[in-house]
Amino acid sequence: MKTIIVDMMGGDNAPLETVKGVGRAIEELDKDVKYILVGDQVQIETIARENEISLEGCEIVHTEEVITMTDDPILVVRGKENSSMSIGLRMLKEGKGDAFVSTGNTGALFTGANLIVRKVKGVKRPAIASLLPLQPPVLLADSGANVVVTPEYLEQFAIMGSAYMKNVMGVEDPRVGLLNNGEEEHKGTELQIETYKILKANESINFVGNVEGNRVMQDTCDVIVADGFTGNIFLKTMEGLGKMMLKTLKSTLYSKVRTRAAGLLIKKEMAGIKKTFDAGELGGAPILGISKPVIKAHGSSKAKAFKNAIRQAIAYSDTMLTTEIEEALAEVAARKKAAEEVQASEENK
Amino acid sequence: MKTIIVDMMGGDNAPLETVKGVGRAIEELDKDVKYILVGDQVQIETIARENEISLEGCEIVHTEEVITMTDDPILVVRGKENSSMSIGLRMLKEGKGDAFVSTGNTGALFTGANLIVRKVKGVKRPAIASLLPLQPPVLLADSGANVVVTPEYLEQFAIMGSAYMKNVMGVEDPRVGLLNNGEEEHKGTELQIETYKILKANESINFVGNVEGNRVMQDTCDVIVADGFTGNIFLKTMEGLGKMMLKTLKSTLYSKVRTRAAGLLIKKEMAGIKKTFDAGELGGAPILGISKPVIKAHGSSKAKAFKNAIRQAIAYSDTMLTTEIEEALAEVAARKKAAEEVQASEENK
Repeated sequence: MKTIIVDMMGGDNAPLETVKGVGRAIEELDKDVKYILVGDQVQIETIARENEISLEGCEIVHTEEVITMTDDPILVVRGKENSSMSIGLRMLKEGKGDAFVSTGNTGALFTGANLIVRKVKGVKRPAIASLLPLQPPVLLADSGANVVVTPEYLEQFAIMGSAYMKNVMGVEDPRVGLLNNGEEEHKGTELQIETYKILKANESINFVGNVEGNRVMQDTCDVIVADGFTGNIFLKTMEGLGKMMLKTLKSTLYSKVRTRAAGLLIKKEMAGIKKTFDAGELGGAPILGISKPVIKAHGSSKAKAFKNAIRQAIAYSDTMLTTEIEEALAEVAARKKAAEEVQASEENK
Repeated sequence: MKTIIVDMMGGDNAPLETVKGVGRAIEELDKDVKYILVGDQVQIETIARENEISLEGCEIVHTEEVITMTDDPILVVRGKENSSMSIGLRMLKEGKGDAFVSTGNTGALFTGANLIVRKVKGVKRPAIASLLPLQPPVLLADSGANVVVTPEYLEQFAIMGSAYMKNVMGVEDPRVGLLNNGEEEHKGTELQIETYKILKANESINFVGNVEGNRVMQDTCDVIVADGFTGNIFLKTMEGLGKMMLKTLKSTLYSKVRTRAAGLLIKKEMAGIKKTFDAGELGGAPILGISKPVIKAHGSSKAKAFKNAIRQAIAYSDTMLTTEIEEALAEVAARKKAAEEVQASEENK
């Protein structure tokens, strides 16, 4: 029996959509899961009643304090210790659940995961990894948490991203690409040039080289590695253009009688296309490098996206991902140490 | 009478599509333009004959040397001085034409523009500016030429981009945004944080603040400023996703009899959507900060895109853009100097 701890209060549409999402999770996902819902009990129960959602078997941990989307992230550990996010993270830390899902303030969740749940041993910086709605899906690490990074951080993002795609998404020998402004190995800033060398030398990952923005969509890699600044620009640009194109298409289809007829003929297909490019279909963003599964659902998640984030939390908690990450990082560290010792002993000759 | 110098040989589809493009330019654009075509005379004339394209009134400057897409950019000034690109740039420098258009090797064109045609006085680094196919169009500066920049370079990109949108595209008081991973002024790396302050303090541009990747598509700015690395990721991501979505849509429409019927009903609208997102519709990318108009057409340009790049070169050469850029930069420099003198005299008190 798994236990998933759910932050009911964060996010743009909470608690209405989080309650609906949990309702769908109970109905549609693995029955052998218990949910701990952290949030305002009266609000949660009222919404459940009004929407005829059964929360039977769920445990509700009541709190009225909420971390808002504009709150300073540090409040999660100092100032709003009684917020639903803070309580949920502490319960995860204390072993009262197997995973934590939140649609709230990203910075606060990242900070709380780091300071309350703590990092996997050997991890320099955890990364927020977003599954991009491509076919097949591509994991972007980092998608915004670490604006300033070193080549070593990026190497760890590559290792953690690989482990996630293998263990949670079932991709064998995931291909890792480095997001860059050209394919040649001298491309990019110093950061990318140095990272290229390190990734190429790392035998434990399947590095396929530099990948340009347009090539990410062409089934060239399963994991795309970037600093959080570039990753954020990449992710937001995809989101923005995707939405704009669907909007243009929709307004075109509904502009005239003739095109409306066409719209009716392809209604199902249009929904399919929308689904194809909907990040919410894939669930949330795991925070890689935290010692227990913490999943960030998109701030604007509706019920379905929230349910999918819960699905992902269950899948994550079914794996030995954190152990694998710890071992992989230890292996890389050991290999580097050995290489340094060889070098040092040669220099002493 | 204007004279446009055209590199017939660079690019993926040259000289076939460049000859066709010039043919269309002669037919469709301003009649009061003379074209100087630099390239292999036999090939150009053969293609024109075979495709029944009249090049009457064009001057052909014959050369057989070509800078390829994979050539080292420096060859344009040392090693391939007789290439069509090199000859064209020298002719522009010598005043034998009013603008130069090329679909060839971007790095070589940028290097050649810098070293042969030379920068506008006061320009630190020229920028390659791409007009994004949005409604209304947005100018991205820099889109890839300058991977490593300073806040001062970015300020100049903002000034030059503004001047271009005003003078060539007729946008009154262009809104300038800084591409960033959030809207708050503390967002981004040190580069963005510092640049934000400088742009905010610059009264000669209409700075609207930080703009996220998805917000660029939402009519928030007319000029979006970025370092060349980030700009390239942004541009390529847009290109890649746009192409992928159109492909998905097309394959959906042609998958079944029913959807094919819908496809026929909205054939015209589909072409319209394709056109909306086609960068080639808008012409090429001006290299801002060069003392005479140099326009880079996309390497994969077909006839229509090449014709549009020529149209843009004509529009550019009809303006006083380089003079305006020089004056704007001089004004900023003078203002900074005055501020420094005030500060120095206060420190001496």
